Amino acid sequence: MNNKHALIYEGKAKRVFSHDDPDKVIIEFKDDATAFNALKKAKFEGKGKLNCQISSKIFKFLSNKDIPTHFIELHNENTMIAQKIKVIPLEVVLRNTAYGSLCKQTTIKPGTILAKPLIDIYLKNDELNDPLITKDRIKLMNIISTKDLDSIIDSTLKINVILKSFFKNIQLQLVDFKLEFGYDFRNNLVLGDEISPDNCRLWDLSQKNDTIISLDKDRFRNDLGGLIEAYSEINRRIKEFI
Amino acid sequence: MNNKHALIYEGKAKRVFSHDDPDKVIIEFKDDATAFNALKKAKFEGKGKLNCQISSKIFKFLSNKDIPTHFIELHNENTMIAQKIKVIPLEVVLRNTAYGSLCKQTTIKPGTILAKPLIDIYLKNDELNDPLITKDRIKLMNIISTKDLDSIIDSTLKINVILKSFFKNIQLQLVDFKLEFGYDFRNNLVLGDEISPDNCRLWDLSQKNDTIISLDKDRFRNDLGGLIEAYSEINRRIKEFI
Repeated sequence: MNNKHALIYEGKAKRVFSHDDPDKVIIEFKDDATAFNALKKAKFEGKGKLNCQISSKIFKFLSNKDIPTHFIELHNENTMIAQKIKVIPLEVVLRNTAYGSLCKQTTIKPGTILAKPLIDIYLKNDELNDPLITKDRIKLMNIISTKDLDSIIDSTLKINVILKSFFKNIQLQLVDFKLEFGYDFRNNLVLGDEISPDNCRLWDLSQKNDTIISLDKDRFRNDLGGLIEAYSEINRRIKEFI
Repeated sequence: MNNKHALIYEGKAKRVFSHDDPDKVIIEFKDDATAFNALKKAKFEGKGKLNCQISSKIFKFLSNKDIPTHFIELHNENTMIAQKIKVIPLEVVLRNTAYGSLCKQTTIKPGTILAKPLIDIYLKNDELNDPLITKDRIKLMNIISTKDLDSIIDSTLKINVILKSFFKNIQLQLVDFKLEFGYDFRNNLVLGDEISPDNCRLWDLSQKNDTIISLDKDRFRNDLGGLIEAYSEINRRIKEFI
């Protein structure tokens, strides 16, 4: 990034820079990985590039299916140009299969296929450790109107239908994923952030046995090793499919 | 309790014994106090009696206002006879004023009077540390039908109107309270557990300054001292009022 692009925001896995066009930003994907609200940290050389490539392709795919996203175009290997959006401080998680925190906060067994998708919403707030939040608490905090919250939930369910089938085509089970939304300069709701193995749980379906083979950030969370190999494999399968 | 009454269940603050009538139980209120999911423990001589007296009077008051409860009659100083119910494993918390865990999980400042009551539901599960649970997770776990969940919420709001005014009459601010519900032998939903300073936050309104004076379990949670004095004061005010 050269000097004329000011750093607007630095997150755990991305940096956002200004663009000549004030309605756009440049998003740089970092090699840093964090888990358990940044209690666990590491760097994986090449992760930034891979997530940038994967996200770009998925955002394009979603746009073609009439899902509005902040993505405009790939800028270079690990940066993309996106619309500048006002990010809503909510993390919307959709779960098709029970895994991770859901199984620590309920009696549902890991690996249970859910009869219908479950949406869990978390407050995006590092200081508070991104807590689970109810619709009533969202309303109370005036984070977003009920109408927009309903739109986000509808949109997440729609995105799930598209992504589930997309990943199934490349022999991946979409276990769960996290989305973030924001308002563009016209105040329209658009999908933001990224869609990558950093925020999707993807299990390999190409193996015929019952063992779970995670091709996502669980390789780091659960010390399974081979994170870059897994992300590269996802990128390879997407490239072949699109 | 004599030998013919078998111990059916022992909780953190109560013991439940069988009764000659199989549709009834004897509930004994213990002197034990626990907080922060039993990480903090103590014994307060006389707490059991006080909570049994306070709960009995409040249950009677609610029955007279057409709220079905499990309470039948006082048995002795620290035991009551109640209907045997199948307890629903949910803790329903209603908040009129923000305090406690709500302020650790949101950006709402302690002491904020909420524009309308907030209902937070927790899964009653000691092993999981009674986590906050969303309506969608309740549905997914098949804990209770949507119709019965709605009934419980309606009932909690109705109980709040009654209790808020009840406590205001005796110069107490009802900050929040926790309820538990169950099904009686006819499968009707009834209010169970207890209603006491162990599960209601009550602030003294008889003082004219702005300092919060807790007359509830926060005296133990926050090491304020004088728990028995506070509970006795609540009992005294209720006795005078009823």
